[in-house]
Amino acid sequence: MKISIERGALLKALGQAQSVVERRATIPILSNVLIDAEGDQVSFRTTDLDIEVVDRAPAMVERPGATTVSAVMLHEIVRKLPDGALVTLAEDSASGRLTIAAGRSTFSLATLPKEDFPVMASSEYASNFSAKAPVLRRLFDKAKFAISTEETRYYLNGVYMHVSTADGGQVLRCVATDGHRLARIDADLPEGATGMPGVIVPRKTVGELRKLLDDDDAIIAVSVSETKIRFATPAITLTSKVIDGTFPDYTRVIPTGNTKRLEVDATEFAKAVDRVATVSSERSRAVKLALDEDRLVLSVNAPDSGAAEEELAVAYGDEPLEIGFNAKYLLEIASQVDRENAVFLFNSSGDPTLMREGNDTSAVYVVMPMRV
Amino acid sequence: MKISIERGALLKALGQAQSVVERRATIPILSNVLIDAEGDQVSFRTTDLDIEVVDRAPAMVERPGATTVSAVMLHEIVRKLPDGALVTLAEDSASGRLTIAAGRSTFSLATLPKEDFPVMASSEYASNFSAKAPVLRRLFDKAKFAISTEETRYYLNGVYMHVSTADGGQVLRCVATDGHRLARIDADLPEGATGMPGVIVPRKTVGELRKLLDDDDAIIAVSVSETKIRFATPAITLTSKVIDGTFPDYTRVIPTGNTKRLEVDATEFAKAVDRVATVSSERSRAVKLALDEDRLVLSVNAPDSGAAEEELAVAYGDEPLEIGFNAKYLLEIASQVDRENAVFLFNSSGDPTLMREGNDTSAVYVVMPMRV
Repeated sequence: MKISIERGALLKALGQAQSVVERRATIPILSNVLIDAEGDQVSFRTTDLDIEVVDRAPAMVERPGATTVSAVMLHEIVRKLPDGALVTLAEDSASGRLTIAAGRSTFSLATLPKEDFPVMASSEYASNFSAKAPVLRRLFDKAKFAISTEETRYYLNGVYMHVSTADGGQVLRCVATDGHRLARIDADLPEGATGMPGVIVPRKTVGELRKLLDDDDAIIAVSVSETKIRFATPAITLTSKVIDGTFPDYTRVIPTGNTKRLEVDATEFAKAVDRVATVSSERSRAVKLALDEDRLVLSVNAPDSGAAEEELAVAYGDEPLEIGFNAKYLLEIASQVDRENAVFLFNSSGDPTLMREGNDTSAVYVVMPMRV
Repeated sequence: MKISIERGALLKALGQAQSVVERRATIPILSNVLIDAEGDQVSFRTTDLDIEVVDRAPAMVERPGATTVSAVMLHEIVRKLPDGALVTLAEDSASGRLTIAAGRSTFSLATLPKEDFPVMASSEYASNFSAKAPVLRRLFDKAKFAISTEETRYYLNGVYMHVSTADGGQVLRCVATDGHRLARIDADLPEGATGMPGVIVPRKTVGELRKLLDDDDAIIAVSVSETKIRFATPAITLTSKVIDGTFPDYTRVIPTGNTKRLEVDATEFAKAVDRVATVSSERSRAVKLALDEDRLVLSVNAPDSGAAEEELAVAYGDEPLEIGFNAKYLLEIASQVDRENAVFLFNSSGDPTLMREGNDTSAVYVVMPMRV
């Protein structure tokens, strides 16, 4: 194999590929990237056995072929090369080395045979559809904070993507929860997604996917089977196993009868919560909300360290209510609000509370109260 | 005690004070800041028993007095208050609380008695002088990278500041070394510094001092005794114990007979060292320099992972030389060079190498070679 490629294009292609590689891989070849040159392009493939990324870039291919080298080291080298440099990658099969040359710099990296590189088995996908990058970005970005980190409840360690109904129509829905809070985000169902099996997309995949979604104009091809999900742009293909488990029936958790309505500027609310939470002890970051006629008093009482109180002018017309929440959870859901006021719907101080943005029900959040 | 103070002034005064506080203080009151209001100013005092910082700010003092509260928590609260807010601090001796009020926010923090706060004993200083902030900044900034972190050689855990002679005149000199590299930085001796006892300024003090030196126009009053050093601006007084030990005779380490002279652009050199070091194993980051007639070849050979080589055009007219260094040490000394080319003076591949900026001998660095 021998190719020439501009440093910027190489860096971009390696950037996504190397991030999938586990830093402490126990199987040596999992630290490597499979470089495959053919025709007028080169592909970079990495995997952690659960996720596989293939990144393609145009290159001048002088001698087709394939080999594997350390993904992190190659990425580091290319990152440090001067901007605009033309980089030559040449495999010397006699020495078992890959030579990287640019300007007056020459590097040679140990290779491992391409045959040993674990390529993910190809699958039949039950469902194929396309979605705009901003649509997927919203679905996953607004849900991911609620993903559980508890490994025993592995089926909550991801975002549950499935087809559901809302307002009488079908929607593509992402749900995540850790038992304390829940996010449910809907988008119009893309053509071809009807009948898609529901899948739990693992946390790491959600993170890697994010990098494909930065470009507002990108169209993402999504393929889903019972065991795998694939996201593809013309340059990048991200394939991931999905979590083998059953996502719990989240609908029971979402309150439908909450009537006490608080409307508040989300940014002001978040700042006030953050301020009063300063005095709380690290462990239980409980903030009390006391609601009365267009008035919200946030307070924290931490006997050891101190107390804090702040008043906010809000829209609230129901009977007085006192309810407590984990400050971190309130801050996280408040930070999801970006267009309108935050609307909270309460029932009692012991019941789950619902939050949404204005009257928009395409993104709703549920948070469990805590005793204060 | 009751005072009112603008949020920005309060934040600035607390900023430096709280950074001295140890995050895991075993004695509770060491987590606190002593707030003392009198006349038309308030002072904030913190200590870790080795360093003491007093920060003063003008304030409207309604009721003079003093108390102590958690430095980190008070700083956090003030940081989160809106810009421009007027903050009132009021001590309620009945409840043993300090109330912090701003706008619609009210906080109360537990206090500890001001009598329990350990105030550093005042000292007689043998020497008092003034220095411009940029002068002290240069002395410490260029030396501190070489401070040893080995706790067994505690006398190397700081910067040795003392009076010395260079080019026949007296200079104020800062030296730091960890046995592998050494920095020796000179400045004109300030008036009044003659006869100053040599002191080893601890690493943490060097870090805290840095914050006093940002303002180019500031004049720093320095006071030195055998056991303490004090740096003061009109707003801040930083007092620190010095390390109780004898700094080794560093002059023996600085080569005087090195004649093989390499001149190289420091930035280009650093970039090239950084690039070739990419392939080296984490532990021994050895880079080989091969010098010949106006040509420098940097190389790394790490049998496990790979090899790297880069050529630089340099000024070198002596006999060919091969010498190895720790890449990290080369990068650190190269990053000290900011005006002219880096000049290296070698003797042999086993002897310490000297580096300076152009022909300026007021800042010289010594680095020990390593076998490659």
